[in-house]
This record gives sequence, C-alpha cells and structure tokens, in this order.
Amino acid sequence: MPVIDQDLHHAINSLRLLSVDMIRVAGSGHPGIALGAAPIIYTLYQNHLKINPADPDWVNRDRFVLSAGHGSALLYSCLFMAGFEITLDDLQAFRKIDSKCPGHPELGKTPGVDCTTGPLGQGLATAVGMALAERYIASYIGSKVKRQELINYYTYVLASDGDLMEGVATEAAAIAGIQGLGKLIVLYDSNDVTLDGELDLSSKEDITKKYDALGWHVDYVNEGNDPKEIDKAIIRAKKVTGKPSLIEIKTIIGRGSYNEGKNIAHGKPLTKDDIDNLRMKMGITTNTMEIEERALKNMRKPIVERVKEEYKPWVEYFNKFKTSSNTDIMKIVRFLEFGEISANFDARNFQIQPNYNEELRESNSKIMNVISDRTPFFLGGSADLSSSCKTNLYKEAELTKQYQLGKNIYFGVREHAMGAILNGMALCGLKVFGSTFLAFSDYLKPAIRMSALMSLPVTYIFTHDSVAVGPDGATHEPVEQLTSLRATPNLDVIRPADINEVIGSWEYILKNKRPTCLIISKQMQHILAGTSSLSVSRGAYIISREQARIDALIISSGTDITTSCLIKEELKALGKDIRVVSMPSINIFLEQQAEYQKEIIPPNVKVIAIETSDKTPWFRFTTPENVLGISDFGLSGDSEDVLKKMEFDYNTIKNKVVELINK
Amino acid sequence: MPVIDQDLHHAINSLRLLSVDMIRVAGSGHPGIALGAAPIIYTLYQNHLKINPADPDWVNRDRFVLSAGHGSALLYSCLFMAGFEITLDDLQAFRKIDSKCPGHPELGKTPGVDCTTGPLGQGLATAVGMALAERYIASYIGSKVKRQELINYYTYVLASDGDLMEGVATEAAAIAGIQGLGKLIVLYDSNDVTLDGELDLSSKEDITKKYDALGWHVDYVNEGNDPKEIDKAIIRAKKVTGKPSLIEIKTIIGRGSYNEGKNIAHGKPLTKDDIDNLRMKMGITTNTMEIEERALKNMRKPIVERVKEEYKPWVEYFNKFKTSSNTDIMKIVRFLEFGEISANFDARNFQIQPNYNEELRESNSKIMNVISDRTPFFLGGSADLSSSCKTNLYKEAELTKQYQLGKNIYFGVREHAMGAILNGMALCGLKVFGSTFLAFSDYLKPAIRMSALMSLPVTYIFTHDSVAVGPDGATHEPVEQLTSLRATPNLDVIRPADINEVIGSWEYILKNKRPTCLIISKQMQHILAGTSSLSVSRGAYIISREQARIDALIISSGTDITTSCLIKEELKALGKDIRVVSMPSINIFLEQQAEYQKEIIPPNVKVIAIETSDKTPWFRFTTPENVLGISDFGLSGDSEDVLKKMEFDYNTIKNKVVELINK
Repeated sequence: MPVIDQDLHHAINSLRLLSVDMIRVAGSGHPGIALGAAPIIYTLYQNHLKINPADPDWVNRDRFVLSAGHGSALLYSCLFMAGFEITLDDLQAFRKIDSKCPGHPELGKTPGVDCTTGPLGQGLATAVGMALAERYIASYIGSKVKRQELINYYTYVLASDGDLMEGVATEAAAIAGIQGLGKLIVLYDSNDVTLDGELDLSSKEDITKKYDALGWHVDYVNEGNDPKEIDKAIIRAKKVTGKPSLIEIKTIIGRGSYNEGKNIAHGKPLTKDDIDNLRMKMGITTNTMEIEERALKNMRKPIVERVKEEYKPWVEYFNKFKTSSNTDIMKIVRFLEFGEISANFDARNFQIQPNYNEELRESNSKIMNVISDRTPFFLGGSADLSSSCKTNLYKEAELTKQYQLGKNIYFGVREHAMGAILNGMALCGLKVFGSTFLAFSDYLKPAIRMSALMSLPVTYIFTHDSVAVGPDGATHEPVEQLTSLRATPNLDVIRPADINEVIGSWEYILKNKRPTCLIISKQMQHILAGTSSLSVSRGAYIISREQARIDALIISSGTDITTSCLIKEELKALGKDIRVVSMPSINIFLEQQAEYQKEIIPPNVKVIAIETSDKTPWFRFTTPENVLGISDFGLSGDSEDVLKKMEFDYNTIKNKVVELINK
Repeated sequence: MPVIDQDLHHAINSLRLLSVDMIRVAGSGHPGIALGAAPIIYTLYQNHLKINPADPDWVNRDRFVLSAGHGSALLYSCLFMAGFEITLDDLQAFRKIDSKCPGHPELGKTPGVDCTTGPLGQGLATAVGMALAERYIASYIGSKVKRQELINYYTYVLASDGDLMEGVATEAAAIAGIQGLGKLIVLYDSNDVTLDGELDLSSKEDITKKYDALGWHVDYVNEGNDPKEIDKAIIRAKKVTGKPSLIEIKTIIGRGSYNEGKNIAHGKPLTKDDIDNLRMKMGITTNTMEIEERALKNMRKPIVERVKEEYKPWVEYFNKFKTSSNTDIMKIVRFLEFGEISANFDARNFQIQPNYNEELRESNSKIMNVISDRTPFFLGGSADLSSSCKTNLYKEAELTKQYQLGKNIYFGVREHAMGAILNGMALCGLKVFGSTFLAFSDYLKPAIRMSALMSLPVTYIFTHDSVAVGPDGATHEPVEQLTSLRATPNLDVIRPADINEVIGSWEYILKNKRPTCLIISKQMQHILAGTSSLSVSRGAYIISREQARIDALIISSGTDITTSCLIKEELKALGKDIRVVSMPSINIFLEQQAEYQKEIIPPNVKVIAIETSDKTPWFRFTTPENVLGISDFGLSGDSEDVLKKMEFDYNTIKNKVVELINK
C-alpha cells in the first residue's frame, strides 16, 4: 500500500471545494472538470510549473494552457492557491462583470493566465505554437550565446475529450509531432463523458494510438485521483526529448458529487446539499469560499522553493546580458524585456522606380524578405501554399526538427492549426505570419478570432483575393471573406493597391499591436500615380484629386484602384471631375478623427464604391445602388471571361459609373 | 511474373494522356495527380462503380467523391471514357467559362459529378455523410420492406495527402469510425509530395495507424501503378462490414513526366515536349486530345455489363413499388423519385396561446419535433450541444452503429465535420439539420460555404445568438458571425423573433432549395403582438404599424424586436409615431419585388436599425449613425450587466432612439 499523503489530498480537496463553491456562487460554470481534474492541475502547479506568482509575465516561465477553458474555476482557484495576485473576493466575483475571473480564461484579465481559451481545440493548438516559439527563440539565442539559459521552458496543456475531437487539435498535434516538440506536455483529462452524454456516443477514437501515429510519446495514468502517479508520468514526459508528450489520465467527471460520472455533472452548479455532502466526505470543515492555511501552504511552499532556485538565479543571469554592448545581445535583451523585434523598417527608405510592374504577391515577397533580413524575430509559413502566395523567406531555411533556426514553417494543408500556432508564437513575442488563399481564410477564422480577442500582432497574408482568380473556379474565389474579416472586432484588414501601399502596410503591421489580414492580389500591378505608403496608416487617402469640383468620389481598394483611376481618366474626357480615394483599410480609416474622414470623403458628394467583393462593407459610405461589387459566387474560366460574365469587367463598371454619375 | 494486361495498361495510359492534354490546352491545372492516380480511378470505374452513364443521377448508384478536387482533369476524362454525356469538345473546354469541365468539380455542371470539391478535406468529410445517409435510408426502407434492394450503394473517395491533413477530414473519419460505415471506401493517393515540397516537410503522420486508431479497416497497396493490386484491395474493402476502409496506395506524382516525384509536377501543365515524350514511352500514337477506340472499349464494356446486371433489374424492381397504395411505400417512392420528404407542414395549422412565454430554443425544439413526427427523412444532430441548443428529437433514439434508425446524430465536438457530413446527407436527399452556438459557426463556415455552393437544403441551427449570452464571456459571444453568414451568397439567414416566426421559418425551410441558418435565442420570449408566421417567407413585414404618420421606422430581428416594440410603445406617450418592421431575413427581403420592399420601408422615412450584432448589414437601409449594434467583443458577466457595459441595455437604446428621432 502506498503511503497516502494526507496534506496533499487535503489540499487537492480544498481546491475542488473552492472551485465548486465559486461556481455555485456565480450561478453557472462547470463543476465536472473541477472535481475530476483537480489532482492533475494541482500536481502540475505544486511540483513542476516553473513560475513566479510575483512576476506572472516572466519571459522564461513555463507556460500553462487550460485548453478545456470551461475549467476556469479550477484554474482560478489553483492560481489563487499558488499565490498569484488573486483574492478570495476575486474568486467570489467569478463570471461577474469586470471580474478578474471571467467565465472562460481571458488573457490580460488574470495574472497567471497565459492564453484565452474556451472554444475547444484552440488551446492545445496554440500551445503547440508556444512550444515551437520556445524552441526557435532558445535556438536563436543559443546561436549567439554559448549554453544559453535565458529561454528554456516547458509548455503544459490540460485538455479534455472535446479538445481532442476538434480538427484543429489534431492538425496541430501532427505539426508538433513532425517538429518533435519535446517540451510540450499535454495532460489529457480522460473522463469518457461529454456535455451531451457518454463519450462513446460520439467518440471511440483510440487517442493514445492516434497520437502515437502522429509521432508523440504517449503515456497513461489509470487512476487520475492519485497525484503520485500523475507526478511520475510528468517526470517521465519531461525526460522525453524530440517528441511531444500526451499523458492520458483517467478521471471521473464530477468525482464525489451526486452525479459523478454523468454528463449532467459537466455544466451545472452543484446544489448546496451536494457540496455540503462533499465537504463532509472530504472531512473539510471550512465554510463556503474559505480555505485552510494548511492547504495553501501545501501548494505554495514548493513554489517558493522553485522561485528561489529558478527565478532568482535567472534574473541575475539576465541582468549580466543587459550590460552587453554586442548588437545581437542587445537585440535579444530588448526582445526579452520589451518584446521589441528591432526591424527598423521605414517606408520612406524605399525608392520605387516609376516603371515598376509585377504581380503584387511578388512585391509583397520582396518587402517581407527585407524585413526578415533585419530581425531574427520575424518568421512564418504557409498552409502548403507558399509557392502560390509567395511568402517564402528565400534566404532562409525550413524550420524543422533538425534545423531549429529555420524561418519558413511548413504547416501542411492545415490552415486552422496554422492560425492557432501563430497565436501561440505571438504570445511568446515573435512577429509571425501565415499565408493561404483568401477563399480559405474561412478555414482558420476561429483562430483569427482568437488573435483578435487576445490582441496578438499576427499577420495573415491572404492572396488570390477575388473572383478574378479565374480558372480554379468558385471554390477558390472569395466573395464574402473580406466582409467577414472586416466585421471582426479588433482586427485590421488591409488590401493594398500597389507596391507603395504594400510597403506602407508593412510599416503599419510592424508597429501594430493587434492582428492584421493583409490581402494581396496575384494580378500584375504597376505603380500608381498618387500612391502613398505613409497614408496606409490612416486607412484611406486621396490617390487622385479632382481638378475643380467633385462630380463623384470613387472609393476603392487593392487592384480595384487601378480600375477606378482609369475610369477617372476616361471620364475626364466627358467633362466629369472625379476624386479617387484609395481605402486600403476601412477599419483604420474609421478610427481616424472625424475631421480627417471629412477631408477625404466630404459630406454631400456622390460616393461610388468599387470592389471585387461582397458589397456590404461599403454601404457605410453610400447608398446601395452606388456600390459596385460581387453578389454571387465566382465561376471557372479565364479571369477576363469570369469578370465579364459577372458584369465586373472594366467596360461594364465604367458604364455603370457613368450612369450613376448622370443619375 | 504476373501477366500484364496490355489493353488495360493502354487504356490507363490513354486516360493519363487525355488528362495532361486537357491541362495543357487549358493552360493550367494539375497533371501530377492525373499521371499518378490514373490507375486508381480507372480501376474503380472499370471494375467496381455501380453507375449508369445514361442515368447519372440514378438514386441507387455508387457515389464517387474526388476529394482531391484539383484532379478534375483526371475525373472528367475518366467520365468521358466511362460513357457519360461528355464529349472531347467538352474536355477541350476545360477551365473555360460555361464549360462542362470547370477547374474543380462542381455539382450540377457535369454528369457523373456527385459533389463539388476543391477545398481540401471537404470531399472526404462529405462522403462520410453520403455513406451515413445510405445506411439510414436503407435501414428505414428496410423497416418497411423486407430485404429491400432499393438503396444499397457504396461511397468511394479518392483522397490526397492534403485531404488527410485537414482537420475536417480527421473529424469526419472519427465519426465514420464510430458509426462503423462499412460501405465507405477511401482510396488514398499516397505520393509523398505536396504543393510546397516533399511531404515530410509538413507531415510524418502514420496515416494507416491513425485511421486504425479511428476504427477503420486499413489496407496498403505498394505499387500504385498496378491495377490488379488496387482491384484486389477494393475487393477486400468491400467485404469488410462494420468498418469504413482506407486503402493507402503508393503512387508517384507526375509519373513518367520529366518532373515525376517532385512537387513541381503538381500544379503546372506539362510542356509539349514532355507530353510527346510520354506518348512515345507509352507507345501511343494518337494526336493531342485524341483517344483510341480500343481504350474506350476497355472501360465501357464492363460498365455496360454492370448496367445490364444492376441498373435494369433495379428499375424493374423500383417500378413495382410505384404501384403500391401503402402510405409508407408511397412516401418512399416519392422520396426516391422526386426527393419529396412529405412533411405536410402548414404554419396556419398552429394556434399559439396569447400568454405563451418560453425560451425561443424551447419553442424551436417543439416545432422541430412536430416535423420529425411527420417524416422519416428529417433528422440531424449537434456538435455536442444538443442539450444547450435544444435540438434533440426527443421521441427518437440516437443514430448509432447498432441502431441505424436513430434520428439524433452525436457529432461530438466536431463542428466542421458536422457541416460537411450534413452536406453529404443532403446530397442523398435527406432534410438534415445541425446545431451549435452562433459564435462557433466560424468552425464550420467552410462547410456552410459548400452547402451554399451546391445549393443544399441543410439547416444550421445556431443558438446563443448575441453578447447577451453573458457569463460565458467573449469567446462564446457572437458579434461578426451574422454579418459573415449574411454576406455568403445563396445562403438564407433567418433570425425569428418569437414562436410564430419560428413556425414561419420552418415552413420556409421545408420548402427551401438552399441552405438556411436559423438563428435562435436562448432568451425568454413571449408571443408578440402583430407577429406573423406567414410573412417570414417575405423576409420582413410590419409587426407594429404607425398610427397616422411615420416619425421613424425601426427595423430589427430576433429578440431585438421585443426591444423595438417596447420602445415604440413608450415613445407613443411622447407623441412619436413609429413603425416597427420585423426583418427575420435580410436576404429574403431583398429578393422580394421592389414594390413590396417599398411598402414595408417607404422611401424618405427615418430608418433606425437595432440588432445585438455587428452593424454592417444594416447600413444598407440607413445611414451609419442610425444603426444601433455591437462593435466590440462581448464580456463575461450577467447578461444585463454585459448589455449595460456595452451600452446596449434597454434604457440606453431607448434614449439613443429618442435622440435619433429628434435629430
């Protein structure tokens, strides 16, 4: 018989009670996971997680992602017990407005929360990005500093059955496998139940076999209520190199409550009676939302020890680097301390020849490569379309298990995991990008939403940006995607018109503190008269001014600007005086001061909008009949034929504009 | 040494040449898969596929889904060889406008094409739905007809490495595994190369082990150029019952061409020289886009045999049923012949008590159950949220491997696969639905887009439809989702206000020939004065008419209608005369005649729009300052607190409306 550590079990039970109390006080939440998985999270925080509750943002801390975000009460009470700046009052305010303890973990709201989670699968996939970032940053520093210990952390995940069912999790797990991310450890709370019922109604996957097939180390703990067994499995996982680890831990949802083992234990607060009974069974005599000092001490003591052994020496070590005058070291210090990527990018330094003419994706590629040359912290990849999107950093190698300094990431045909992994890398300070066709941005929209929710400066590069894609047909031709992205809060969408605007976009992106979708055409594009890189940061500007009066004002973006400027010139001959406004970004423009907005689009002028995309976003600026856009799915055919058939070829548009002006 | 069937190899090489010729004529396309996978598709069509080229829509045909949709040239030339109504001229028009042979396979454009494909992963996942539909329909008919042979078909898929990397494919494969879909056979064209390079840059998954873990029968063919080996593996797979089959077939991308085995063979037409050389090596002397009779005969002869053996007896068998006077049999016949689901739903038959008051998701549940009672062809499920979305058919059992007549499908936390599987089921004539929270509609957007592209009458039920969700916080609160769905062409979005409008929505849905998103609140909702079920089919109607003049017209949808009507009543006391328009569906309203539109929203009245969602769609009806909506992500807190903090509580809205009217 193993010796039972009474203090340990008492502390874990205290964590359980605190969590179910919180949920009962809040009136909603998820007690099932709190009762079932408490020993897992407790063991991790008590014995393993390298953290300093007094410095929750320590750059070299171990990361923890609660992929099963509905277990937030468990996480918050654990963070409280670990000594983070969270009070019992904060826990009382669980799920209340302006609380430190929102319904699902939210980055920036709670000290100790490393990632916003809730939508299942995202957390695990994001953690893959964190582990990949750790390895890249550590490798880079290692190439400049012998035996560096500035960055050397594990990424842990607590995942549920639901997480592992999500496609994004499997995609990301496959990437973790090929990359051989040895410092990623997933603790799988395997309780055989989902919200809707027994797991085997919806899943009979052999998870460990599946993860083995994906190249993972897999382990199994039969008794999820035994912290010693969990501890041993974590120790084994930490010893594995070159493979991420998945530890399947069998638990009982709602353990000890009246509905233990049943799906109804998942998402409904326990009754008072149920909790009273639990307390009694556990031999704990505290009142609601109280905790004994003995329990706190049990968790905090080893953490304090680790702070002494791990955090303090690290600070001293780091401080030595701060005095270095070596440029590379200085850049590393600024990156670790302030998140600076030191790209020193200034749009004014670019001189583009007037006869410049190439595919915009080529121009974009050149600018990206300039940036990459200047900073090691700029990297990214593609969902198997780097050759089409032209987002390869051509002087750089592939980032692989073998060559960990590569800057080109091959995500495979896994758009969704690409988005989530980029989020994880951005959470660790890297300036990352990912590319695919605009039509496929739908595949990763949930991850883009997470970028926006967390304000992560990820850059999504979406090419092939309209029905003009042509031969590939409707499935490859975006229509509604720009509208969808533009409607997403806290997300910048920029659709530049020529290389100058591409340069301006990147200057904006490099300073941006939130995600950007950069929409790039594959069509040929010469440099436009009146184009301005610096004005991109204002969202819109006058690219071609009227001569005397404004008979009409045309707003447009991307390749459509070429059309708009040509129409203006043609209509000059007909005596029409037109202003053309280039609006690479609607949302940035709307954030400018009203005065600037009025200067660009004066009130009471006839505004016509032209864009080869769904019309909705432009109704903001004019009446519906004055918006020329796309209302149907695209077609397969030569680009020109497609546009003609969809009544969006140059002549048709021009005639419509004339008609609108004369109306 | 095996005897080499010269005719067979000649025919397969002819198929290859036709495909690469097509691509060269078109100037774009994907020769790699055509040269590599020709023996696979050839073997399938020649020896196995139960089809009748003269009746391509035969309801009991075997289904074939080219999940690797970029292999379209290979499919079209195969269909041509098989005898479908496709000419050499059609093949010549590959990728041209209005052609029978678009860049990727499109449903309805080409006889013999069972599914639109192109976005990777979708095809395989959709095929899971086809196989599930087959089993359900066959089981249902089997419950009425002894030893029925009306429906009894296989679903075959040709999938690429890229398909299997996509999360949606893995999700769907897991569902196929748990459902034990023995008549689903996936032929995996395993060529170790993707668009961007060698497969092992982005994937080292052990696919057969992974599919084994998901509950599949897995098999392996080492020489993908040997039709006999492929044939044997298909025969083995057909014998497997209770498990779907994956046959990994090793092929060489671009086999025989200068770049065979390399990623550049994937997506660029071969040069003339390369094709000439191929012809020479194959000993084929035809000119470009020519084929020898001998090759055609090789494929067509066995197909003609099968038509004789399988199709003709089936028609005779089916004709016997047509004369039946048994009601159930008559319904089955109408379903198989005309796709009728015989729900006999008439909104006018419902009498709702004036004091009716319940959560709208409850009301919706009741109506769904009424429909379910009336037709066996209405079924669906949820991505593990049936208990929250209330979309369970409560008199019905779960659809499982063991009980194949169940009508509740447990998709698990796999939203994306749910969407694709529903598409597959709809392709087989079933009226299906799937549910999750509106915020998570992003997860399945790519599948919704496929529903819209194929005009499949799938119903997506999205509940928890605004930031009023409350405690669960921003990750669970939709903002931009309605805008995104409404911007998607050929998709109906309906957000009913009360039970009457829910009834009207379902009447519309049951007649609808395209997909619908039904947006359902979880808030309490009493029956509204002026509400009309029949008007839902017109998109909008006057729910509360002005008394004498229109001081302002408020448009709204869903629960926001309650707010709008209350404001109207309050403002009456202030002497303001307001019309309230309920607009459950913007897109349906916009399809009405201009006269009706003007009747509902007369020109030159002040229009105010109110919706707890992103504002963009409403700019169509009024100026930006007159749209009251949500511009930021939601918050965690009590619903009322969240609305107050976001300035969208009743009083704030009312005051804004007063201000706008007085402006």
